[in-house]
Amino acid sequence: MVPLAEIETARARLPSAVIRTPLLYSEELSERAGAPIYFKCENLQVTGSYKARAAFTILDRLGPEQRPRGAALSSSGNFASAFAYMGRLLGIPTAVVMMEKTARLKVEKCRRYGAEIVFCPNQWEERWRTLDRLQSERGILAVNTFESEAVIAGHGTLGLEIMDDLPEVGTVLVPVSSGGLIGGLATAVKERRPAARVVGVQPTGSNAATLSFQRGEVTRIPAVETICDALIAQAPGHLPFAHIQRYVDEMALVSDDETKAAIAWLAENAKLVVEAGGAVAAAALLTRRVRPQGPSVCLLSGGNIAPATLSACLAEAA
Amino acid sequence: MVPLAEIETARARLPSAVIRTPLLYSEELSERAGAPIYFKCENLQVTGSYKARAAFTILDRLGPEQRPRGAALSSSGNFASAFAYMGRLLGIPTAVVMMEKTARLKVEKCRRYGAEIVFCPNQWEERWRTLDRLQSERGILAVNTFESEAVIAGHGTLGLEIMDDLPEVGTVLVPVSSGGLIGGLATAVKERRPAARVVGVQPTGSNAATLSFQRGEVTRIPAVETICDALIAQAPGHLPFAHIQRYVDEMALVSDDETKAAIAWLAENAKLVVEAGGAVAAAALLTRRVRPQGPSVCLLSGGNIAPATLSACLAEAA
Repeated sequence: MVPLAEIETARARLPSAVIRTPLLYSEELSERAGAPIYFKCENLQVTGSYKARAAFTILDRLGPEQRPRGAALSSSGNFASAFAYMGRLLGIPTAVVMMEKTARLKVEKCRRYGAEIVFCPNQWEERWRTLDRLQSERGILAVNTFESEAVIAGHGTLGLEIMDDLPEVGTVLVPVSSGGLIGGLATAVKERRPAARVVGVQPTGSNAATLSFQRGEVTRIPAVETICDALIAQAPGHLPFAHIQRYVDEMALVSDDETKAAIAWLAENAKLVVEAGGAVAAAALLTRRVRPQGPSVCLLSGGNIAPATLSACLAEAA
Repeated sequence: MVPLAEIETARARLPSAVIRTPLLYSEELSERAGAPIYFKCENLQVTGSYKARAAFTILDRLGPEQRPRGAALSSSGNFASAFAYMGRLLGIPTAVVMMEKTARLKVEKCRRYGAEIVFCPNQWEERWRTLDRLQSERGILAVNTFESEAVIAGHGTLGLEIMDDLPEVGTVLVPVSSGGLIGGLATAVKERRPAARVVGVQPTGSNAATLSFQRGEVTRIPAVETICDALIAQAPGHLPFAHIQRYVDEMALVSDDETKAAIAWLAENAKLVVEAGGAVAAAALLTRRVRPQGPSVCLLSGGNIAPATLSACLAEAA
């Protein structure tokens, strides 16, 4: 388990490039949800998502021998850009493994920040095989982001910021995929304030962590189907899941239609651009699927949505 | 002239409902503009625009005899909602004069906050006539927002926040219509830091303040034509113009197409929803129409854009 002290160390080491994102009170959502709601705006984070935090922590922890060889992970989305960005910032070579089918825009964004892109065949397991090969052949450290203490510590820094800005917090709602985000965040929040309630939110079509939470063990689902392209883990990691079991109070599900409506609502009312995976916690409040107790925080975890998708959500809501 | 001390008093009296909006560093715009750029995010302000500041200051200054009678102003947009909101907050009756042609959505938003809507015929001068009538017949104080010290002091609070957050500021870019915003803001910035440069930005189709600035006297233009529905003053106010002459360094113009592109750019890159009138300063930087010197601030003054308009801007930019 990652202790609070490790999260505090990770936070102290964050560079100024990682924004201490604002915690914004939303009068409109407070009225709808029946409790004071604040948005933690990681959509405004550098590279457009909270992944900037763990990406930095992973690379910052590399020893002097590993630094010149660099590190690699597999991601086609937010983690890829954040990792590339932090590699450039720290002067550490980074490689990102992506499947050949990955959208060109995502590839280019990652490459622009300076990462080496290594393509692999379009099968999930090929990504791990390629990572292993990079490590054995070239000495690049292969990071398994599902089972990484650095990931939990890095994302946990978000919980510390929330506690500093709203010490009396009642409920915190967090989007969930592999569990690294909520694992770290919940550890920080509950160690600081055991009375707080941490709620994870997933899309109905990608509910592996919810199912695992209900069954009390890591459970793999055969497939995911959701517009939330940042929330597609078929199972939570074992290390994050241990933190979820200890610190998370409940899990909730929202449909993709509810998430699309939340994206439009956030643009119109909160003036914030939020991607699908970043909007599920807001969807859980807008639909009253989760009832917040006391002053509560809704994490908006990312803003990397294609303009055409945002446009479609706005049109559907009209 | 409104002295700095008056702006400082206005700031000290602002209620917690008026958000100290974040000053967000934009790596992407900094790269484009060639200097470090920060967004002052008044699109995230309560009621969706900076008008919340002056609306509060106007009503807060009413004497004990006037308070129960209330106050009135004319606006169909951001000032109307902000005024209604602050009236409700302070328990002061508010009336808003709108032309009969005003879009139903704007009327309803204003009414929801609790203002009395008083319609007048669809002619500009009818608005002043109706305000006068409200004052003489019902004792409601008619506020001329173009010539109000409270407006300049209230909006000046923005300048103080910028100076506190970025004391070494080089250039500040501000959207301009009647001049109350830039008049107050420039007073605060330049009194605190004479070396700073304050630049006003207007749409090419609504350039009354720019023309007045060039000629050295208040100049009225025969008509305005712009998508920036918050920037439609046919002349700056005389009181704001005196502050502009003393404190503003230059004026710049951007086309509506450039503003639309800026709206799309801000949504995609900064993850912020900004209305047309709120995006002109960003447009001036994106087009390099204005060259910032040193760490600079781009004011995003409001976020009240119709979803369909935002959608259209995103589609055009794609």
